[in-house]
Amino acid sequence: MNLNGIGAAKGLAVGPAVVIRELPPVKRNSISLGEVPAEKDRLTKAMERAGSELEELKNRLSPELQGIIKAQLLFMKDPDLMSSIEACLEDGKNAEWAVEEAADEFIEAISMLSNDYLKERAGDVKDFQRRVLAALMGLPAPSIDLTRPSILIAKDLTPSDTAALDVSMVLGFATEAGGPTSHSAIIARSAGFPAIVGVADLLNVIKDGDTVVLEAFSGEVLVNPPDDIKASYTAKMEDNRRQLLESKRNKDLPAVTLDGREVELAANIGSPHDAALALEWGAASIGLFRTEFLYMQSNELPSEETQYAAYKKAVETMLPRSVIFRTLDIGGDKALPYLQMPPEENPFLGYRALRLCLDRPDLFKTQLRAILRAGEHGNIRIMFPMVATIDELRRAKEMLREAANELGLASLPEIGIMVEIPSTAIMARTFAEEVDFFSIGSNDLIQYTVAADRGNKSVSYLYQYLEPSVLHLIANVIEAAHAAGKWAGMCGEMAGDPQAIPFLLGLGLDEFSMNAPALPEARDLIRSLSLVECRKLAERALKCRSVEEIQALIAD
Amino acid sequence: MNLNGIGAAKGLAVGPAVVIRELPPVKRNSISLGEVPAEKDRLTKAMERAGSELEELKNRLSPELQGIIKAQLLFMKDPDLMSSIEACLEDGKNAEWAVEEAADEFIEAISMLSNDYLKERAGDVKDFQRRVLAALMGLPAPSIDLTRPSILIAKDLTPSDTAALDVSMVLGFATEAGGPTSHSAIIARSAGFPAIVGVADLLNVIKDGDTVVLEAFSGEVLVNPPDDIKASYTAKMEDNRRQLLESKRNKDLPAVTLDGREVELAANIGSPHDAALALEWGAASIGLFRTEFLYMQSNELPSEETQYAAYKKAVETMLPRSVIFRTLDIGGDKALPYLQMPPEENPFLGYRALRLCLDRPDLFKTQLRAILRAGEHGNIRIMFPMVATIDELRRAKEMLREAANELGLASLPEIGIMVEIPSTAIMARTFAEEVDFFSIGSNDLIQYTVAADRGNKSVSYLYQYLEPSVLHLIANVIEAAHAAGKWAGMCGEMAGDPQAIPFLLGLGLDEFSMNAPALPEARDLIRSLSLVECRKLAERALKCRSVEEIQALIAD
Repeated sequence: MNLNGIGAAKGLAVGPAVVIRELPPVKRNSISLGEVPAEKDRLTKAMERAGSELEELKNRLSPELQGIIKAQLLFMKDPDLMSSIEACLEDGKNAEWAVEEAADEFIEAISMLSNDYLKERAGDVKDFQRRVLAALMGLPAPSIDLTRPSILIAKDLTPSDTAALDVSMVLGFATEAGGPTSHSAIIARSAGFPAIVGVADLLNVIKDGDTVVLEAFSGEVLVNPPDDIKASYTAKMEDNRRQLLESKRNKDLPAVTLDGREVELAANIGSPHDAALALEWGAASIGLFRTEFLYMQSNELPSEETQYAAYKKAVETMLPRSVIFRTLDIGGDKALPYLQMPPEENPFLGYRALRLCLDRPDLFKTQLRAILRAGEHGNIRIMFPMVATIDELRRAKEMLREAANELGLASLPEIGIMVEIPSTAIMARTFAEEVDFFSIGSNDLIQYTVAADRGNKSVSYLYQYLEPSVLHLIANVIEAAHAAGKWAGMCGEMAGDPQAIPFLLGLGLDEFSMNAPALPEARDLIRSLSLVECRKLAERALKCRSVEEIQALIAD
Repeated sequence: MNLNGIGAAKGLAVGPAVVIRELPPVKRNSISLGEVPAEKDRLTKAMERAGSELEELKNRLSPELQGIIKAQLLFMKDPDLMSSIEACLEDGKNAEWAVEEAADEFIEAISMLSNDYLKERAGDVKDFQRRVLAALMGLPAPSIDLTRPSILIAKDLTPSDTAALDVSMVLGFATEAGGPTSHSAIIARSAGFPAIVGVADLLNVIKDGDTVVLEAFSGEVLVNPPDDIKASYTAKMEDNRRQLLESKRNKDLPAVTLDGREVELAANIGSPHDAALALEWGAASIGLFRTEFLYMQSNELPSEETQYAAYKKAVETMLPRSVIFRTLDIGGDKALPYLQMPPEENPFLGYRALRLCLDRPDLFKTQLRAILRAGEHGNIRIMFPMVATIDELRRAKEMLREAANELGLASLPEIGIMVEIPSTAIMARTFAEEVDFFSIGSNDLIQYTVAADRGNKSVSYLYQYLEPSVLHLIANVIEAAHAAGKWAGMCGEMAGDPQAIPFLLGLGLDEFSMNAPALPEARDLIRSLSLVECRKLAERALKCRSVEEIQALIAD
């Protein structure tokens, strides 16, 4: 039997299913007024058990993953949630009923938000609910213990599920709920195993021990396939794994074409912990450090010291390699509740990243100081996201100079910008005079250039790496950089796409920054290509009128 | 005393205030179960009176404005609204209370939508509520009778207020509520009088007969200014008026520069009725007929016959001048409730205009047939909005050919596209080979190029006509058109902006299409300019790095 979902982290896996069942249905009993104190007492005890489980779990985790548990501990103190649980008790509902109903309402309320980040926080509340209900019902704490390499099958994976997971035993997972931006999808992508989300009927169909094939390229889940099909997928998976091991063995070889053009293969990371993983996959540097994580895991702005400590760790881990810090890219679809930004009708065209930072020198300079101080411990570069005009760049550089002066630093690190807005790609020659490097943010650049939200299924057909107008903009950016003696990289997902790499090489891209698990394949590919041929290909692509014509070129 | 709001239609007006007061507070009486039938009876009579008032009003209006009244008559039959009024009655509330409460809840519900168009429909419900309450309270029907040229001051102007208005007696208006996209703001812009919306405290401060100055450029409302200030504004207003009359007298003069370059001055219209007004203001043609009005005034897709009749009227009115029909640009912020499109996180980057039409051949071909048939009665051109790729253009042209075949037409009209997406501006040479003309949609083109929603105050600083990257794109589009022997126009608001016109002339723009009231000033300006000088200006602008540098050029 085949099921279908959305591939949230690509790859292929074959293995036995471990089905994570939900708790049994909650018993809803009415209680009398006299019983309320006793129910409150049961609730308090259950909350205490859940709290100590989370504390214990937290201590087993790395400092980065601890943030996930902290978020849940916070929900246990949320006054809105707690007072609505109490209100249910006083309405004569038993503790199980009260926790279920109040948390469900809370989850429903935040799920209706248009903000993806907050929506996904519903997972934290769900997790809290499950843990407290288990305690109330006298059931063991929810946990996933894997004894052999398995494929996880679940309604949804909560953050504490994934945080506590022994990743070496996970072949991949499929869930009924969740979207490509869900917490578990992100974990899967950075760990490099396949994941399929949004699979209807999953838990009805799959039983523990069933053989499951995850074909995350197409989003297919095969359940107990015939032996020959299973064998062919297993062979393919083994083949992939061998190739990956082979590629990983090549991780210290230079990314150089057959005719001697060497480029830099860098990794995109989201936390200091990821830096160590990036090295394992053979990253020559960090091309994009997304600095949002500290801001999103906290319920207030992280202090300069907190940031400094995290940035310093990433810098020291990578030494002597360099780390490019992208300054805060928050706002739009990544809102920080504590900044209380008004909702926007078009968040992708809204008040985000540098636009917000330039308005909030307090917030921005705190981060800049933390990055500059971390830079004393290794090699750093700084880049600004969402720059649309030269004036914005100048103001950002001025604030950086101020931060450096405050710290008494004599020199500044290399300064670059993300090129992700069409105006900036068009005016690249102007910008090249005032930066040290460019990093093309292909995800946003494509979406603005064709005016199509890539998360919107109705228009995602327009979102294509090989869209000719985008290739023209990329060519313009690289040319402008080189004409001014600067370098140009790319840190969007296009940089790791095997179809796009030959074109990017041909257009002269100097640095390719991608999710670490994509590095081995990219390295092997580059080492198999000829720059001369790639240049010819790129020249021909720039004469094409459509994606189809460019794809025909590749087929040639 | 000075008040401040948002200038929704520019201009200056000085005159006596006519304050449109709200109804007195409603008396909320509880009724017994036995009284419900009598209250229902009162309600039915009030609804009947309101209905016949609206019918009578409708008969006094032009067919286009009748749509507004029809929308209100529809609300009187809305089952949700009616059943919640009945529920209030049955809860023991008197008829006034029931109408007030149910309509308020309805208004609140639709005001919370993120969709501007639906939000503004709250005005229709408000209008219905006021009319029925007046009938219940035995008060005269709300109407605005002006005996001398006046400035209207109101909490909000409802659609039936503005529809029934004697426009010749209106100098301008200010309202407490409403946004720049409100119904009344649109009416003001197309009639050419100043309007200021969102003025807090307006009704508390201004009394009937007060002297009011509306300075809609800055959004200022001056109340009973000192005599010298009043005199200076009155002189300025008279001066503006004289200049306008003078300009209107020039309406049949060609739009030709001092050194002989002639361009076409066209009007943007939203209904056949506007075509007659456009002629009064001296439009040489219609550069943009927005065909959305029939779709938005109706609660189902308009039939081919309905569309044909409306389009034919516009074509005949303009004869022998031509009309450019833009095919349906719906979706995004202009949703049609009856199409039941899912909400989008970024509607400006979403499923709108041609993207939707290509998916709905039924809907699209009905419109294309209606336009082609109207073309038999005069001169038409057709253009497609939101084209991002050559493939989309080809598919749209194919559907147009099919529609023409179905009608047995031997030849097609001229076919153009809106250039409003960066990819299309970048690939203009490719598109120029397959169209007869371009019309640059500057509003969207700017907003996508700098990735800033112009309706979002936090980022509107990025939305600038003279943004250098936008000028580069415009230059590219015009060059590509001319290289292929085609022409290029512009139908965004930039085309009517006196600061932008010299640059556009210098870049070689062939046609300028704008709101009709902007035509006289544009014509006078063009007749005062030298093409040679404009070209030099444009060349220098293309070397600038920022809006500020370009503005310094102008100051020079």
